[in-house]
Amino acid sequence: MRDFSNDHRWLSLNTATVRKQGDFAQIVDACARHGIRAIDPWRDQVAAIGLDRAVKVVRDAGLDLSGYCRGGMFTADDAHRQAARDDNRRAVDEAKALGASCIVLVVGGLPQYSRPGSAPSKNIGVAHAQVEDGIAELLDYAKQASMPLAIEPLHPAYAADRACVNTMRQALDICDRLDPSRSGAVGVALDVYHVWWDFELLTQIERAGKNRLLAFHVCDWLVPTKDILNDRGMMGDGVIDIKSVRAAVEAQGFAGYSEIEIFSDDWWGRPMDDVIRTCIERHRTVV
Amino acid sequence: MRDFSNDHRWLSLNTATVRKQGDFAQIVDACARHGIRAIDPWRDQVAAIGLDRAVKVVRDAGLDLSGYCRGGMFTADDAHRQAARDDNRRAVDEAKALGASCIVLVVGGLPQYSRPGSAPSKNIGVAHAQVEDGIAELLDYAKQASMPLAIEPLHPAYAADRACVNTMRQALDICDRLDPSRSGAVGVALDVYHVWWDFELLTQIERAGKNRLLAFHVCDWLVPTKDILNDRGMMGDGVIDIKSVRAAVEAQGFAGYSEIEIFSDDWWGRPMDDVIRTCIERHRTVV
Repeated sequence: MRDFSNDHRWLSLNTATVRKQGDFAQIVDACARHGIRAIDPWRDQVAAIGLDRAVKVVRDAGLDLSGYCRGGMFTADDAHRQAARDDNRRAVDEAKALGASCIVLVVGGLPQYSRPGSAPSKNIGVAHAQVEDGIAELLDYAKQASMPLAIEPLHPAYAADRACVNTMRQALDICDRLDPSRSGAVGVALDVYHVWWDFELLTQIERAGKNRLLAFHVCDWLVPTKDILNDRGMMGDGVIDIKSVRAAVEAQGFAGYSEIEIFSDDWWGRPMDDVIRTCIERHRTVV
Repeated sequence: MRDFSNDHRWLSLNTATVRKQGDFAQIVDACARHGIRAIDPWRDQVAAIGLDRAVKVVRDAGLDLSGYCRGGMFTADDAHRQAARDDNRRAVDEAKALGASCIVLVVGGLPQYSRPGSAPSKNIGVAHAQVEDGIAELLDYAKQASMPLAIEPLHPAYAADRACVNTMRQALDICDRLDPSRSGAVGVALDVYHVWWDFELLTQIERAGKNRLLAFHVCDWLVPTKDILNDRGMMGDGVIDIKSVRAAVEAQGFAGYSEIEIFSDDWWGRPMDDVIRTCIERHRTVV
Protein backbone atom coordinates (compact mmCIF):
# COMPACT_ATOMS: atom_id res chain seq x y z
CA MET A 1 0.00 0.00 0.00
CA ARG A 2 1.37 3.38 -0.97
CA ASP A 3 2.30 5.85 1.73
CA PHE A 4 0.19 8.98 1.31
CA SER A 5 1.38 10.68 4.47
CA ASN A 6 4.22 12.71 2.98
CA ASP A 7 2.65 14.29 -0.06
CA HIS A 8 -0.49 14.37 -2.15
CA ARG A 9 0.81 13.33 -5.53
CA TRP A 10 -1.93 10.69 -5.79
CA LEU A 11 -4.76 13.01 -4.89
CA SER A 12 -7.25 13.77 -7.63
CA LEU A 13 -9.99 16.32 -7.11
CA ASN A 14 -13.41 15.55 -8.50
CA THR A 15 -14.57 18.98 -9.55
CA ALA A 16 -18.04 18.47 -8.06
CA THR A 17 -16.40 18.81 -4.64
CA VAL A 18 -16.07 22.58 -5.15
CA ARG A 19 -18.72 23.10 -7.81
CA LYS A 20 -20.46 25.92 -5.97
CA GLN A 21 -17.28 27.90 -5.29
CA GLY A 22 -16.05 28.54 -8.82
CA ASP A 23 -16.22 27.63 -12.47
CA PHE A 24 -14.10 24.97 -14.11
CA ALA A 25 -11.23 27.32 -14.94
CA GLN A 26 -11.15 28.65 -11.39
CA ILE A 27 -11.09 25.10 -10.00
CA VAL A 28 -8.17 24.23 -12.28
CA ASP A 29 -6.36 27.36 -11.08
CA ALA A 30 -6.95 26.32 -7.48
CA CYS A 31 -5.54 22.86 -8.19
CA ALA A 32 -2.38 24.47 -9.58
CA ARG A 33 -2.08 26.66 -6.45
CA HIS A 34 -2.32 23.59 -4.22
CA GLY A 35 -0.06 21.26 -6.21
CA ILE A 36 -2.88 18.93 -7.21
CA ARG A 37 -1.93 16.89 -10.25
CA ALA A 38 -5.26 15.40 -11.32
CA ILE A 39 -8.95 16.14 -11.54
CA ASP A 40 -12.17 14.46 -12.61
CA PRO A 41 -14.40 17.04 -14.31
CA TRP A 42 -18.17 16.97 -14.58
CA ARG A 43 -19.77 17.51 -17.95
CA ASP A 44 -21.91 20.45 -16.91
CA GLN A 45 -18.88 22.29 -15.55
CA VAL A 46 -16.99 21.68 -18.78
CA ALA A 47 -19.98 22.76 -20.86
CA ALA A 48 -20.31 25.97 -18.85
CA ILE A 49 -16.94 27.26 -20.09
CA GLY A 50 -17.02 25.35 -23.40
CA LEU A 51 -15.19 22.12 -24.25
CA ASP A 52 -12.40 23.80 -26.22
CA ARG A 53 -11.52 26.15 -23.41
CA ALA A 54 -11.76 23.31 -20.88
CA VAL A 55 -9.32 21.25 -22.94
CA LYS A 56 -6.96 24.22 -23.07
CA VAL A 57 -7.01 24.96 -19.34
CA VAL A 58 -6.45 21.30 -18.53
CA ARG A 59 -3.49 21.11 -20.93
CA ASP A 60 -2.02 24.42 -19.83
CA ALA A 61 -2.16 23.26 -16.22
CA GLY A 62 -0.64 19.89 -17.14
CA LEU A 63 -3.39 18.05 -15.27
CA ASP A 64 -4.14 14.35 -15.47
CA LEU A 65 -7.78 13.29 -15.58
CA SER A 66 -8.60 10.36 -13.31
CA GLY A 67 -11.97 10.09 -15.00
CA TYR A 68 -14.75 12.07 -16.62
CA CYS A 69 -18.15 12.39 -14.97
CA ARG A 70 -20.35 11.11 -16.33
CA GLY A 71 -21.97 8.92 -18.90
CA GLY A 72 -24.91 6.68 -18.27
CA MET A 73 -28.58 7.28 -17.50
CA PHE A 74 -29.31 4.45 -19.92
CA THR A 75 -32.84 3.84 -18.70
CA ALA A 76 -35.42 5.54 -20.88
CA ASP A 77 -38.64 4.85 -22.70
CA ASP A 78 -38.59 4.35 -26.45
CA ALA A 79 -39.08 8.03 -27.14
CA HIS A 80 -35.97 8.98 -25.19
CA ARG A 81 -33.62 6.13 -26.06
CA GLN A 82 -31.96 7.71 -29.07
CA ALA A 83 -31.26 10.89 -27.12
CA ALA A 84 -29.66 8.82 -24.37
CA ARG A 85 -27.49 7.02 -26.91
CA ASP A 86 -26.36 10.25 -28.60
CA ASP A 87 -25.71 11.93 -25.29
CA ASN A 88 -23.47 9.07 -24.16
CA ARG A 89 -21.48 9.12 -27.37
CA ARG A 90 -20.87 12.83 -26.92
CA ALA A 91 -19.69 12.13 -23.39
CA VAL A 92 -17.13 9.66 -24.75
CA ASP A 93 -15.97 12.23 -27.32
CA GLU A 94 -15.55 14.86 -24.61
CA ALA A 95 -13.66 12.45 -22.37
CA LYS A 96 -11.33 11.69 -25.26
CA ALA A 97 -10.77 15.37 -26.05
CA LEU A 98 -9.96 16.05 -22.41
CA GLY A 99 -7.63 13.07 -22.12
CA ALA A 100 -9.55 11.26 -19.39
CA SER A 101 -8.40 7.84 -18.24
CA CYS A 102 -11.97 6.54 -18.23
CA ILE A 103 -15.57 7.68 -18.33
CA VAL A 104 -17.57 7.10 -15.17
CA LEU A 105 -21.01 5.58 -15.77
CA VAL A 106 -23.90 6.40 -13.47
CA VAL A 107 -26.23 3.98 -15.13
CA GLY A 108 -29.67 5.36 -14.34
CA GLY A 109 -32.53 4.19 -12.16
CA LEU A 110 -36.16 4.07 -13.21
CA PRO A 111 -36.62 5.81 -16.58
CA GLN A 112 -38.81 8.66 -15.34
CA TYR A 113 -35.91 9.88 -13.19
CA SER A 114 -32.99 9.05 -15.48
CA ARG A 115 -34.47 10.59 -18.59
CA PRO A 116 -37.22 12.95 -17.45
CA GLY A 117 -40.27 12.75 -19.63
CA SER A 118 -39.97 8.98 -19.97
CA ALA A 119 -43.09 7.00 -19.08
CA PRO A 120 -43.13 6.11 -15.37
CA SER A 121 -42.22 2.55 -14.49
CA LYS A 122 -41.76 0.54 -11.31
CA ASN A 123 -40.10 -2.34 -13.10
CA ILE A 124 -36.53 -2.37 -11.88
CA GLY A 125 -35.89 -5.64 -13.74
CA VAL A 126 -36.52 -3.85 -17.02
CA ALA A 127 -34.23 -1.04 -15.85
CA HIS A 128 -31.47 -3.56 -15.18
CA ALA A 129 -31.84 -4.97 -18.68
CA GLN A 130 -31.84 -1.51 -20.29
CA VAL A 131 -28.68 -0.61 -18.43
CA GLU A 132 -26.87 -3.67 -19.67
CA ASP A 133 -28.05 -3.13 -23.23
CA GLY A 134 -27.01 0.51 -23.04
CA ILE A 135 -23.53 -0.28 -21.74
CA ALA A 136 -23.09 -2.97 -24.38
CA GLU A 137 -23.96 -0.56 -27.14
CA LEU A 138 -21.81 2.26 -25.79
CA LEU A 139 -18.93 -0.15 -25.34
CA ASP A 140 -18.61 -0.62 -29.09
CA TYR A 141 -18.32 3.12 -29.54
CA ALA A 142 -16.00 3.62 -26.58
CA LYS A 143 -13.63 0.87 -27.72
CA GLN A 144 -13.10 2.71 -30.99
CA ALA A 145 -12.12 5.75 -28.95
CA SER A 146 -10.01 3.61 -26.58
CA MET A 147 -12.02 5.08 -23.73
CA PRO A 148 -12.60 2.62 -20.86
CA LEU A 149 -16.07 2.57 -19.32
CA ALA A 150 -16.09 2.57 -15.51
CA ILE A 151 -19.41 1.37 -14.12
CA GLU A 152 -19.95 3.03 -10.75
CA PRO A 153 -22.12 1.00 -8.39
CA LEU A 154 -24.13 3.62 -6.51
CA HIS A 155 -25.45 3.27 -2.99
CA PRO A 156 -28.82 1.46 -3.00
CA ALA A 157 -30.41 4.68 -1.72
CA TYR A 158 -30.06 5.92 -5.32
CA ALA A 159 -31.52 2.85 -7.02
CA ALA A 160 -34.72 4.60 -8.06
CA ASP A 161 -33.45 7.92 -9.29
CA ARG A 162 -29.77 7.59 -10.22
CA ALA A 163 -28.42 4.08 -10.65
CA CYS A 164 -29.89 0.60 -10.40
CA VAL A 165 -26.42 -0.95 -10.32
CA ASN A 166 -25.76 -0.93 -6.60
CA THR A 167 -23.08 -3.45 -5.68
CA MET A 168 -19.65 -4.49 -6.88
CA ARG A 169 -21.04 -7.97 -7.52
CA GLN A 170 -23.72 -6.61 -9.82
CA ALA A 171 -21.28 -4.36 -11.71
CA LEU A 172 -18.74 -7.16 -12.11
CA ASP A 173 -21.40 -9.58 -13.31
CA ILE A 174 -22.11 -7.08 -16.09
CA CYS A 175 -18.40 -6.75 -16.85
CA ASP A 176 -18.07 -10.54 -17.07
CA ARG A 177 -20.91 -10.75 -19.55
CA LEU A 178 -19.85 -7.82 -21.73
CA ASP A 179 -16.10 -8.35 -21.65
CA PRO A 180 -15.35 -11.96 -20.78
CA SER A 181 -11.76 -11.61 -21.99
CA ARG A 182 -11.12 -8.85 -19.43
CA SER A 183 -9.78 -6.53 -22.09
CA GLY A 184 -9.91 -3.54 -19.79
CA ALA A 185 -12.52 -1.80 -21.92
CA VAL A 186 -15.07 -1.98 -19.11
CA GLY A 187 -14.57 -2.05 -15.35
CA VAL A 188 -15.72 -0.34 -12.19
CA ALA A 189 -15.31 2.96 -10.43
CA LEU A 190 -15.25 2.12 -6.74
CA ASP A 191 -16.44 4.91 -4.47
CA VAL A 192 -16.14 3.97 -0.82
CA TYR A 193 -19.30 5.96 -0.04
CA HIS A 194 -21.41 3.67 -2.15
CA VAL A 195 -20.00 0.28 -1.26
CA TRP A 196 -18.42 0.46 2.22
CA TRP A 197 -21.40 -1.35 3.81
CA ASP A 198 -21.24 -4.42 1.54
CA PHE A 199 -20.27 -7.67 3.28
CA GLU A 200 -18.83 -8.82 -0.05
CA LEU A 201 -16.73 -5.71 -0.69
CA LEU A 202 -13.32 -7.26 -0.13
CA THR A 203 -14.06 -10.45 -2.04
CA GLN A 204 -15.50 -8.47 -4.95
CA ILE A 205 -12.45 -6.18 -5.04
CA GLU A 206 -10.37 -9.32 -5.34
CA ARG A 207 -12.66 -10.58 -8.08
CA ALA A 208 -12.33 -7.29 -9.96
CA GLY A 209 -8.55 -7.36 -9.97
CA LYS A 210 -6.33 -4.62 -11.33
CA ASN A 211 -7.82 -5.02 -14.76
CA ARG A 212 -11.29 -3.92 -13.70
CA LEU A 213 -10.48 -1.39 -11.01
CA LEU A 214 -10.53 1.73 -13.13
CA ALA A 215 -11.10 4.42 -10.51
CA PHE A 216 -11.07 4.84 -6.74
CA HIS A 217 -13.18 7.56 -5.12
CA VAL A 218 -13.28 8.64 -1.50
CA CYS A 219 -15.42 10.68 0.86
CA ASP A 220 -17.14 9.49 4.05
CA TRP A 221 -20.51 8.30 5.37
CA LEU A 222 -21.81 10.58 8.11
CA VAL A 223 -24.02 9.39 10.97
CA PRO A 224 -26.61 10.76 10.84
CA THR A 225 -26.78 11.50 7.13
CA LYS A 226 -29.15 14.44 6.89
CA ASP A 227 -29.63 14.44 3.13
CA ILE A 228 -29.27 11.38 0.94
CA LEU A 229 -27.61 13.20 -1.94
CA ASN A 230 -25.81 16.20 -0.52
CA ASP A 231 -24.62 15.32 2.97
CA ARG A 232 -21.54 13.28 2.18
CA GLY A 233 -18.67 13.65 4.58
CA MET A 234 -15.05 14.77 4.36
CA MET A 235 -12.76 11.78 4.78
CA GLY A 236 -12.30 11.10 8.47
CA ASP A 237 -15.57 12.70 9.56
CA GLY A 238 -17.66 9.55 9.12
CA VAL A 239 -17.59 5.83 9.73
CA ILE A 240 -15.81 4.42 6.68
CA ASP A 241 -12.49 2.69 7.25
CA ILE A 242 -11.07 4.20 4.05
CA LYS A 243 -7.51 2.94 4.49
CA SER A 244 -8.72 -0.67 4.60
CA VAL A 245 -10.57 -0.30 1.34
CA ARG A 246 -7.62 1.41 -0.31
CA ALA A 247 -5.34 -1.35 0.94
CA ALA A 248 -7.60 -3.95 -0.67
CA VAL A 249 -7.73 -2.05 -3.95
CA GLU A 250 -3.97 -1.53 -4.05
CA ALA A 251 -3.37 -5.17 -3.14
CA GLN A 252 -4.85 -5.90 -6.57
CA GLY A 253 -2.30 -3.63 -8.19
CA PHE A 254 -4.32 -0.46 -8.49
CA ALA A 255 -1.81 2.39 -8.65
CA GLY A 256 -3.96 5.29 -9.82
CA TYR A 257 -5.27 8.41 -8.17
CA SER A 258 -7.36 8.52 -5.04
CA GLU A 259 -10.12 10.82 -6.17
CA ILE A 260 -11.99 12.99 -3.71
CA GLU A 261 -15.65 13.46 -4.56
CA ILE A 262 -17.80 15.10 -1.90
CA PHE A 263 -21.38 16.21 -2.52
CA SER A 264 -22.05 18.35 0.51
CA ASP A 265 -24.07 21.46 1.15
CA ASP A 266 -21.81 21.96 4.14
CA TRP A 267 -18.51 21.89 2.22
CA TRP A 268 -19.98 23.77 -0.75
CA GLY A 269 -20.61 26.60 1.68
CA ARG A 270 -16.92 27.05 2.54
CA PRO A 271 -14.16 28.87 0.62
CA MET A 272 -12.58 26.76 -2.12
CA ASP A 273 -9.05 27.03 -0.74
CA ASP A 274 -10.18 25.91 2.72
CA VAL A 275 -11.93 22.88 1.27
CA ILE A 276 -8.91 21.92 -0.82
CA ARG A 277 -6.53 22.38 2.11
CA THR A 278 -8.72 20.08 4.20
CA CYS A 279 -8.88 17.53 1.38
CA ILE A 280 -5.08 17.46 1.19
CA GLU A 281 -4.69 17.12 4.95
CA ARG A 282 -7.22 14.27 5.16
CA HIS A 283 -5.73 12.59 2.10
CA ARG A 284 -2.44 12.42 3.98
CA THR A 285 -3.91 11.26 7.27
CA VAL A 286 -7.00 9.10 6.77
CA VAL A 287 -7.13 7.96 3.12
CA MET B 1 -50.77 -15.60 -5.40
CA ARG B 2 -53.56 -14.82 -3.00
CA ASP B 3 -56.23 -12.31 -3.99
CA PHE B 4 -56.18 -9.45 -1.50
CA SER B 5 -58.68 -7.29 -3.34
CA ASN B 6 -61.83 -8.45 -1.55
CA ASP B 7 -60.86 -8.31 2.10
CA HIS B 8 -57.96 -7.66 4.42
CA ARG B 9 -57.79 -10.90 6.33
CA TRP B 10 -54.05 -11.17 5.60
CA LEU B 11 -53.22 -7.64 6.71
CA SER B 12 -51.10 -7.32 9.83
CA LEU B 13 -50.40 -3.93 11.33
CA ASN B 14 -46.96 -3.27 12.70
CA THR B 15 -47.72 -1.08 15.67
CA ALA B 16 -44.90 1.36 14.83
CA THR B 17 -47.09 2.55 11.96
CA VAL B 18 -49.35 4.42 14.39
CA ARG B 19 -46.98 4.74 17.34
CA LYS B 20 -47.50 8.47 17.74
CA GLN B 21 -51.30 8.30 17.69
CA GLY B 22 -51.97 6.06 20.68
CA ASP B 23 -50.62 3.55 23.16
CA PHE B 24 -50.54 -0.18 22.60
CA ALA B 25 -54.02 -0.78 24.02
CA GLN B 26 -55.50 1.98 21.87
CA ILE B 27 -53.84 0.51 18.78
CA VAL B 28 -55.29 -2.92 19.57
CA ASP B 29 -58.73 -1.31 19.98
CA ALA B 30 -58.36 0.35 16.61
CA CYS B 31 -57.43 -2.96 15.00
CA ALA B 32 -60.62 -4.48 16.42
CA ARG B 33 -62.66 -1.57 15.02
CA HIS B 34 -61.21 -2.10 11.58
CA GLY B 35 -61.36 -5.89 11.45
CA ILE B 36 -57.59 -6.32 11.51
CA ARG B 37 -56.64 -9.80 12.66
CA ALA B 38 -52.91 -9.47 13.33
CA ILE B 39 -50.30 -7.08 14.62
CA ASP B 40 -46.55 -6.91 15.18
CA PRO B 41 -45.86 -5.03 18.41
CA TRP B 42 -42.71 -3.12 19.32
CA ARG B 43 -41.08 -3.78 22.65
CA ASP B 44 -41.17 -0.18 23.85
CA GLN B 45 -44.90 0.02 23.18
CA VAL B 46 -45.48 -3.20 25.10
CA ALA B 47 -43.26 -2.03 27.95
CA ALA B 48 -45.16 1.25 28.17
CA ILE B 49 -48.37 -0.51 29.25
CA GLY B 50 -46.62 -3.49 30.87
CA LEU B 51 -46.14 -6.97 29.42
CA ASP B 52 -48.96 -8.59 31.42
CA ARG B 53 -51.51 -6.05 30.28
CA ALA B 54 -50.23 -6.27 26.71
CA VAL B 55 -50.66 -10.05 26.76
CA LYS B 56 -54.19 -9.59 28.06
CA VAL B 57 -55.29 -7.03 25.47
CA VAL B 58 -53.86 -9.16 22.68
CA ARG B 59 -55.70 -12.24 23.96
CA ASP B 60 -58.93 -10.41 24.61
CA ALA B 61 -58.87 -9.05 21.08
CA GLY B 62 -58.04 -12.48 19.64
CA LEU B 63 -55.14 -11.06 17.65
CA ASP B 64 -52.44 -13.04 15.90
CA LEU B 65 -48.89 -11.72 16.09
CA SER B 66 -47.03 -11.83 12.76
CA GLY B 67 -43.83 -11.06 14.64
CA TYR B 68 -42.37 -9.19 17.56
CA CYS B 69 -40.11 -6.17 17.06
CA ARG B 70 -37.38 -6.51 17.91
CA GLY B 71 -34.35 -8.41 19.04
CA GLY B 72 -30.85 -7.78 17.86
CA MET B 73 -28.35 -4.96 18.26
CA PHE B 74 -25.73 -7.64 18.79
CA THR B 75 -22.77 -5.36 18.14
CA ALA B 76 -21.23 -4.10 21.34
CA ASP B 77 -17.89 -3.74 23.03
CA ASP B 78 -16.92 -6.19 25.78
CA ALA B 79 -18.44 -4.02 28.48
CA HIS B 80 -21.86 -4.08 26.83
CA ARG B 81 -22.01 -7.62 25.50
CA GLN B 82 -23.65 -9.26 28.50
CA ALA B 83 -26.35 -6.58 28.56
CA ALA B 84 -27.04 -7.23 24.88
CA ARG B 85 -27.30 -10.96 25.53
CA ASP B 86 -29.68 -10.53 28.48
CA ASP B 87 -31.77 -8.01 26.60
CA ASN B 88 -32.22 -10.39 23.68
CA ARG B 89 -33.24 -13.25 25.92
CA ARG B 90 -35.87 -11.05 27.50
CA ALA B 91 -37.11 -10.18 24.02
CA VAL B 92 -37.54 -13.89 23.27
CA ASP B 93 -39.42 -14.38 26.55
CA GLU B 94 -41.74 -11.48 25.75
CA ALA B 95 -42.36 -12.77 22.23
CA LYS B 96 -43.26 -16.13 23.70
CA ALA B 97 -45.62 -14.61 26.27
CA LEU B 98 -47.35 -12.62 23.56
CA GLY B 99 -47.64 -15.60 21.23
CA ALA B 100 -45.60 -14.13 18.38
CA SER B 101 -44.85 -16.24 15.32
CA CYS B 102 -41.24 -15.05 15.28
CA ILE B 103 -38.96 -12.40 16.68
CA VAL B 104 -37.62 -9.90 14.18
CA LEU B 105 -33.87 -9.25 14.48
CA VAL B 106 -32.44 -5.86 13.63
CA VAL B 107 -28.89 -7.00 14.07
CA GLY B 108 -27.03 -3.79 14.86
CA GLY B 109 -24.48 -1.70 12.99
CA LEU B 110 -21.27 -0.33 14.47
CA PRO B 111 -21.22 -0.87 18.25
CA GLN B 112 -21.26 2.80 19.26
CA TYR B 113 -24.70 3.14 17.64
CA SER B 114 -26.16 -0.27 18.45
CA ARG B 115 -25.24 -0.24 22.12
CA PRO B 116 -24.55 3.40 23.03
CA GLY B 117 -21.55 3.76 25.26
CA SER B 118 -19.65 1.07 23.38
CA ALA B 119 -16.19 2.08 22.17
CA PRO B 120 -16.37 3.62 18.67
CA SER B 121 -15.29 1.40 15.81
CA LYS B 122 -15.14 1.67 12.02
CA ASN B 123 -14.54 -2.03 11.57
CA ILE B 124 -17.64 -3.35 9.87
CA GLY B 125 -16.00 -6.77 9.43
CA VAL B 126 -15.85 -7.14 13.19
CA ALA B 127 -19.48 -6.04 13.39
CA HIS B 128 -20.45 -8.75 10.91
CA ALA B 129 -18.70 -11.36 13.03
CA GLN B 130 -20.31 -10.12 16.26
CA VAL B 131 -23.71 -10.29 14.66
CA GLU B 132 -23.26 -13.88 13.60
CA ASP B 133 -21.91 -14.86 17.01
CA GLY B 134 -24.82 -13.10 18.69
CA ILE B 135 -27.43 -14.78 16.54
CA ALA B 136 -25.78 -18.18 17.08
CA GLU B 137 -25.89 -17.72 20.82
CA LEU B 138 -29.45 -16.43 20.89
CA LEU B 139 -30.53 -19.27 18.63
CA ASP B 140 -29.81 -21.83 21.34
CA TYR B 141 -32.03 -19.94 23.74
CA ALA B 142 -34.76 -19.28 21.17
CA LYS B 143 -34.93 -22.91 20.11
CA GLN B 144 -35.77 -23.91 23.67
CA ALA B 145 -38.64 -21.44 23.53
CA SER B 146 -39.61 -22.60 20.03
CA MET B 147 -39.34 -18.99 18.91
CA PRO B 148 -38.05 -18.59 15.33
CA LEU B 149 -35.52 -15.84 14.73
CA ALA B 150 -36.23 -13.71 11.66
CA ILE B 151 -33.13 -11.82 10.49
CA GLU B 152 -34.27 -8.62 8.80
CA PRO B 153 -31.85 -7.36 6.17
CA LEU B 154 -32.04 -3.59 6.50
CA HIS B 155 -31.44 -1.09 3.71
CA PRO B 156 -27.72 -0.36 3.36
CA ALA B 157 -28.45 3.23 4.40
CA TYR B 158 -28.75 1.81 7.95
CA ALA B 159 -25.53 -0.23 7.89
CA ALA B 160 -23.70 2.06 10.32
CA ASP B 161 -26.34 2.70 12.92
CA ARG B 162 -28.96 -0.06 12.78
CA ALA B 163 -28.03 -3.22 10.93
CA CYS B 164 -24.95 -4.41 9.06
CA VAL B 165 -26.93 -7.25 7.48
CA ASN B 166 -28.18 -5.53 4.35
CA THR B 167 -29.11 -8.05 1.70
CA MET B 168 -31.08 -11.27 1.43
CA ARG B 169 -27.91 -13.03 0.27
CA GLN B 170 -26.05 -11.96 3.40
CA ALA B 171 -28.90 -12.98 5.72
CA LEU B 172 -29.33 -16.34 4.00
CA ASP B 173 -25.60 -17.03 4.13
CA ILE B 174 -25.89 -16.64 7.90
CA CYS B 175 -28.94 -18.92 8.00
CA ASP B 176 -27.06 -21.56 6.01
CA ARG B 177 -24.16 -21.50 8.42
CA LEU B 178 -26.23 -21.50 11.62
CA ASP B 179 -28.97 -23.85 10.54
CA PRO B 180 -27.75 -26.01 7.68
CA SER B 181 -30.60 -28.46 8.18
CA ARG B 182 -33.14 -25.68 7.50
CA SER B 183 -35.01 -26.48 10.69
CA GLY B 184 -37.03 -23.27 10.52
CA ALA B 185 -35.46 -21.95 13.72
CA VAL B 186 -33.84 -19.08 11.83
CA GLY B 187 -34.92 -17.33 8.66
CA VAL B 188 -35.54 -13.88 7.27
CA ALA B 189 -38.06 -11.08 7.62
CA LEU B 190 -38.33 -9.57 4.16
CA ASP B 191 -39.36 -5.91 4.10
CA VAL B 192 -39.78 -4.64 0.56
CA TYR B 193 -38.48 -1.22 1.63
CA HIS B 194 -35.09 -2.63 2.48
CA VAL B 195 -34.52 -5.02 -0.40
CA TRP B 196 -36.56 -3.84 -3.40
CA TRP B 197 -33.45 -2.41 -5.14
CA ASP B 198 -31.46 -5.68 -5.04
CA PHE B 199 -30.75 -7.25 -8.45
CA GLU B 200 -30.65 -10.61 -6.67
CA LEU B 201 -33.95 -10.21 -4.83
CA LEU B 202 -35.95 -12.75 -6.79
CA THR B 203 -33.21 -15.38 -6.86
CA GLN B 204 -32.60 -14.97 -3.15
CA ILE B 205 -36.32 -15.30 -2.37
CA GLU B 206 -36.20 -18.57 -4.28
CA ARG B 207 -33.13 -19.61 -2.33
CA ALA B 208 -34.87 -18.79 0.96
CA GLY B 209 -37.87 -20.94 0.21
CA LYS B 210 -40.92 -21.23 2.40
CA ASN B 211 -38.83 -22.57 5.25
CA ARG B 212 -36.84 -19.37 5.66
CA LEU B 213 -39.43 -16.77 4.73
CA LEU B 214 -40.72 -15.99 8.20
CA ALA B 215 -42.26 -12.56 7.68
CA PHE B 216 -43.23 -10.21 4.86
CA HIS B 217 -43.34 -6.46 5.47
CA VAL B 218 -44.56 -3.73 3.17
CA CYS B 219 -44.42 0.04 2.78
CA ASP B 220 -42.97 2.05 -0.12
CA TRP B 221 -39.84 3.92 -1.20
CA LEU B 222 -40.58 7.56 -1.91
CA VAL B 223 -38.68 9.65 -4.46
CA PRO B 224 -37.32 11.87 -3.10
CA THR B 225 -36.87 10.34 0.35
CA LYS B 226 -36.57 13.35 2.63
CA ASP B 227 -35.44 11.52 5.76
CA ILE B 228 -33.60 8.22 5.76
CA LEU B 229 -35.42 6.82 8.78
CA ASN B 230 -38.81 8.46 8.96
CA ASP B 231 -39.95 9.19 5.41
CA ARG B 232 -41.17 5.78 4.34
CA GLY B 233 -44.15 5.73 2.06
CA MET B 234 -47.66 4.31 2.17
CA MET B 235 -47.92 1.42 -0.26
CA GLY B 236 -48.63 2.80 -3.72
CA ASP B 237 -47.07 6.20 -3.09
CA GLY B 238 -43.54 5.18 -4.08
CA VAL B 239 -41.65 3.17 -6.66
CA ILE B 240 -41.73 -0.38 -5.32
CA ASP B 241 -43.56 -2.98 -7.38
CA ILE B 242 -44.93 -4.60 -4.23
CA LYS B 243 -47.19 -7.12 -5.95
CA SER B 244 -44.25 -8.62 -7.83
CA VAL B 245 -42.31 -9.18 -4.63
CA ARG B 246 -45.35 -10.68 -2.89
CA ALA B 247 -45.89 -12.96 -5.89
CA ALA B 248 -42.31 -14.20 -5.60
CA VAL B 249 -42.63 -14.78 -1.86
CA GLU B 250 -45.95 -16.60 -2.22
CA ALA B 251 -44.58 -18.68 -5.08
CA GLN B 252 -42.31 -20.20 -2.43
CA GLY B 253 -45.33 -21.14 -0.35
CA PHE B 254 -45.41 -18.21 2.04
CA ALA B 255 -48.99 -17.93 3.28
CA GLY B 256 -48.64 -15.60 6.25
CA TYR B 257 -49.63 -12.03 6.89
CA SER B 258 -48.61 -9.06 4.82
CA GLU B 259 -47.43 -6.73 7.55
CA ILE B 260 -47.60 -2.98 7.13
CA GLU B 261 -44.73 -1.13 8.76
CA ILE B 262 -44.41 2.56 7.94
CA PHE B 263 -42.01 4.89 9.74
CA SER B 264 -43.24 8.28 8.60
CA ASP B 265 -43.45 11.68 10.20
CA ASP B 266 -46.13 12.38 7.63
CA TRP B 267 -48.40 9.44 8.51
CA TRP B 268 -47.69 9.77 12.24
CA GLY B 269 -49.22 13.22 11.96
CA ARG B 270 -52.61 11.92 10.81
CA PRO B 271 -55.50 10.45 12.85
CA MET B 272 -55.08 6.74 13.60
CA ASP B 273 -58.34 5.71 11.95
CA ASP B 274 -57.47 7.57 8.76
CA VAL B 275 -54.09 5.86 8.59
CA ILE B 276 -55.60 2.43 9.15
CA ARG B 277 -58.34 3.03 6.58
CA THR B 278 -55.69 3.98 4.03
CA CYS B 279 -53.60 0.92 4.94
CA ILE B 280 -56.61 -1.33 4.32
CA GLU B 281 -57.45 0.33 1.02
CA ARG B 282 -53.87 0.08 -0.25
CA HIS B 283 -53.55 -3.48 1.00
CA ARG B 284 -56.47 -4.37 -1.23
CA THR B 285 -55.27 -2.43 -4.28
CA VAL B 286 -51.48 -2.34 -4.49
CA VAL B 287 -50.05 -5.00 -2.13
